[in-house]
Amino acid sequence: MSKSASVSQAAGLLRDSDRILVLTHQYPDGDTLGSGFALCHALRKMGKLCRVECADNIPEKYTYLYETMPPCPPFDAAFICAVDVADTRLLGNALQPYVGHIDLCIDHHGSNTQYADWLLLCPDYAATAMLICEVIRELGVPIDKSIATCIYTGIATDTGCFKYSNTTAYTHRMTADMLDQGIPSEMINRTMFDIKSRARVELERMALDNMRFYLSERCAIMAITLQMIDQSGAGEDDMEGLAPIPRQIEGVWVGVTLREKRDGSFKVSVRTGNHADASAICRVLGGGGHIRAAGCTVDGPLDKATQTMLDAVRTIIGR
Amino acid sequence: MSKSASVSQAAGLLRDSDRILVLTHQYPDGDTLGSGFALCHALRKMGKLCRVECADNIPEKYTYLYETMPPCPPFDAAFICAVDVADTRLLGNALQPYVGHIDLCIDHHGSNTQYADWLLLCPDYAATAMLICEVIRELGVPIDKSIATCIYTGIATDTGCFKYSNTTAYTHRMTADMLDQGIPSEMINRTMFDIKSRARVELERMALDNMRFYLSERCAIMAITLQMIDQSGAGEDDMEGLAPIPRQIEGVWVGVTLREKRDGSFKVSVRTGNHADASAICRVLGGGGHIRAAGCTVDGPLDKATQTMLDAVRTIIGR
Repeated sequence: MSKSASVSQAAGLLRDSDRILVLTHQYPDGDTLGSGFALCHALRKMGKLCRVECADNIPEKYTYLYETMPPCPPFDAAFICAVDVADTRLLGNALQPYVGHIDLCIDHHGSNTQYADWLLLCPDYAATAMLICEVIRELGVPIDKSIATCIYTGIATDTGCFKYSNTTAYTHRMTADMLDQGIPSEMINRTMFDIKSRARVELERMALDNMRFYLSERCAIMAITLQMIDQSGAGEDDMEGLAPIPRQIEGVWVGVTLREKRDGSFKVSVRTGNHADASAICRVLGGGGHIRAAGCTVDGPLDKATQTMLDAVRTIIGR
Repeated sequence: MSKSASVSQAAGLLRDSDRILVLTHQYPDGDTLGSGFALCHALRKMGKLCRVECADNIPEKYTYLYETMPPCPPFDAAFICAVDVADTRLLGNALQPYVGHIDLCIDHHGSNTQYADWLLLCPDYAATAMLICEVIRELGVPIDKSIATCIYTGIATDTGCFKYSNTTAYTHRMTADMLDQGIPSEMINRTMFDIKSRARVELERMALDNMRFYLSERCAIMAITLQMIDQSGAGEDDMEGLAPIPRQIEGVWVGVTLREKRDGSFKVSVRTGNHADASAICRVLGGGGHIRAAGCTVDGPLDKATQTMLDAVRTIIGR
């Protein structure tokens, strides 16, 4: 169990530390990276040594989050802070050596496994980046354009650009404060939400072709197989944002995306409307997440993975 | 030429009037309907007779905008206000008898043709609904849940859910004020942006199959033919939101959607990034709109329509 930290306690821990290592989750997204780099910008502005680590390569489209950051000499970490990482397993293999030595975790996942000494957790917030914004304000570092760009990225990506139910009046007000800094929000949104490579468009079309409906059409399952990925020429960057597609079909309560991995297992994303709890479905299979968006991993082959997911969905929505 | 009205002058004109008819544009969208019904809610709360008219049937998904409105007896209009209508041609055939008798227009299209006696215009605003919000505040009518629901709908739909470049800090702050009223934003966003019928998914797939690239791949043209519409079973409601698709492809500056009409002509939507002016392209062909989103109509058949559009695009982007 972690000790529960308030925003000011978290800021206090960071203020009293130096040589700070910020850890993000594998398959990094806009919230973990936006949170990590916002915090890193702020701590460096305070004169501290700080760097961000991620088990995976950071996709090129996120370069703008850190390209304005001055270089920082190498250092041995004296304080380790994980951001947007609900479970140490999500750190990925490369960061496993840090497990057991994480001083602070800042997160918005209700499913956080409390692995850090201190935990600043707010499951009501749409994004971890919102907590980071509050911590930076508490540290007394002005939110400048670089920091605002990172925080905006975290909020926009985790709310589906302000579309999801986690978006509140406070989310919009904090976002307005970020826009006051003259951030390139159009570029960010175009990069995060609009631009699709031709390989991605091809992959989407193949995936749509193979979408199937189950449980009185309440459940749609879309598979992304290795064959589709290879045939379309899609890279890792082209895979993001596929998960919401099945749930977007009229009448669908539970949208499931199954993505085949090289080891033959399937990475599962579950998305739900207000009729079902995605997190409950994934917990049945050892996963977790939010009420409307959750994930887990299941064994292949595809037929078996599909059946596993249908059984789990049926357990929760009961038909 | 119209007389230019400030927000308080527009509010004054409405305050001094009764039996008010609010006109919306044909092929109604969230902003014209959200604006119209927000204004109608407010004017009825002031005890005035007011109704909204549209040349086309209002798609069922917009029912929530007016279902809480108490009935209003029939009346002959004494004051006519058009909302979000840039040009009288956009009123559609059924509302043409009102042309020449429109007292006030409230709009955010820079291309407004100044057909009304008074014009409240703010091209910097993302949505006409933002002007309507200011007018209602000026009228002294509290922004309640019904009104906030309408205004949110206008803002969210015209900003692509806060994604487009027209979204400012003020847009987010006004939206936060609307969310303070406890509006069903999740339902609205799901209805406006997420839910797709299976016919729509099918139509999208066919359209993607037929997308073509021109002008060093800077221009993508997607055609929606009558045959595709018939084959997919798509209805009018299923057509919305197709226009942004071609511009979303990596490297595309100008995305063009050509939709075949029953008379053999094509309704054209042009979307651009920051490399080209959509409005300039459409003006070449007698249309208009915004810098990133504009429209026009061109003659068929498809080959000819495609060539017409390519010539117009080449005129503007020059290759």
